[in-house]
Amino acid sequence: MLFIPGLQDHDNRLSRATVVRFSLYLRQLEDRVLKGEAKVSSKQLGEALGITAAQVRKDLACLGNLGQPGIGYSPDELIAAIRHILGIDRTWSVALVGVGNLGRALLRYKGFPFRGFRFVALFESDASLVGQRVEGIAVHGLTDIAKVVHADKVELAVLAVPSDAAQSVADSLVQAGIKGLLNFAPAVLRVPADVSLVAVDLTVQLEQLAFQVHTHYVM
Amino acid sequence: MLFIPGLQDHDNRLSRATVVRFSLYLRQLEDRVLKGEAKVSSKQLGEALGITAAQVRKDLACLGNLGQPGIGYSPDELIAAIRHILGIDRTWSVALVGVGNLGRALLRYKGFPFRGFRFVALFESDASLVGQRVEGIAVHGLTDIAKVVHADKVELAVLAVPSDAAQSVADSLVQAGIKGLLNFAPAVLRVPADVSLVAVDLTVQLEQLAFQVHTHYVM
Repeated sequence: MLFIPGLQDHDNRLSRATVVRFSLYLRQLEDRVLKGEAKVSSKQLGEALGITAAQVRKDLACLGNLGQPGIGYSPDELIAAIRHILGIDRTWSVALVGVGNLGRALLRYKGFPFRGFRFVALFESDASLVGQRVEGIAVHGLTDIAKVVHADKVELAVLAVPSDAAQSVADSLVQAGIKGLLNFAPAVLRVPADVSLVAVDLTVQLEQLAFQVHTHYVM
Repeated sequence: MLFIPGLQDHDNRLSRATVVRFSLYLRQLEDRVLKGEAKVSSKQLGEALGITAAQVRKDLACLGNLGQPGIGYSPDELIAAIRHILGIDRTWSVALVGVGNLGRALLRYKGFPFRGFRFVALFESDASLVGQRVEGIAVHGLTDIAKVVHADKVELAVLAVPSDAAQSVADSLVQAGIKGLLNFAPAVLRVPADVSLVAVDLTVQLEQLAFQVHTHYVM
């Protein structure tokens, strides 16, 4: 399944926009738990995300009957329910392909382990890195993808490789049985229908920004 | 204006989804120009993006009367029209704040200069880097943001700083007159209404992927 953020309006049973909002609610709720807040209202969540309280209530209704009218929601209950619906109430074993600057930045990104994404294997074409450890994780050559994915029970893979290598790396990962790819290479990848693909095109993000600033200028 | 990909369904005059598709058409069209193709059909573009030819024709109609029925579109004409509507038929001067692994990866990302985004100034809190050059660009201290933004006519800024520093850096950039921020820190930032903000939350992307794989498992 090809999935480019913003391209499809609907996928699976929840809309993509709803799923993104669940991730954003999660961040807000975790902040509130850290601050010791025991209740949160749809109004507060709406204000934090820049959307209406009615939209918040509609989204959270997908999680079951969790809120109490006039009292609000328990952040802990909402966090558990959102993590469950997103499939992140568990640990995911993730491989990273490409241990350059972007790969190293991703390895150090604290949000991933906090949310249950655990890097268990690294792959790199640069022979001088193969056999070494980066952030405590062993670096393997690309020819070992199938063996390592199987041995380490890798479920998801993050591609931080140059564009011209991305499709062949994706093919190797899919052949090895990986069911989900997060692609940072600015290349459109083809994967079988039973493999999920999320593409992060950093240029698209900067173009979105330029468009907004440009439109502000014009208006 | 707060803009988180996937959060709003409509902004400005074109929908966010349409603007993202324009970026993706651009990539396809550039590939085709490189291959020497003089014509492209809505069917070909639709297949490349995984959407219908009807959707492609609807999107491209926003650009004016460019295609010829039965013959197709000129990739060069479409590229010029899309670059114009997105506001990227010009060069944007960009500052990068945070010259760690992520910042360095972004500096080396070839897509940016190719699309007219030119890094002209770097800012970093690490005093040992201030005064040095990274990828040929001078690194300044955070206290020099206002001075350098003005001197180098910086228009957009990319934030690749830790979460706890992001809001204060954003405040400094906004005070210095920056009108667009691309934020990689996993923090929700507040900016004035006349400043555009695009947030790239890498955890959200990985959560989207986990959700898709999780849903495939369930179905």
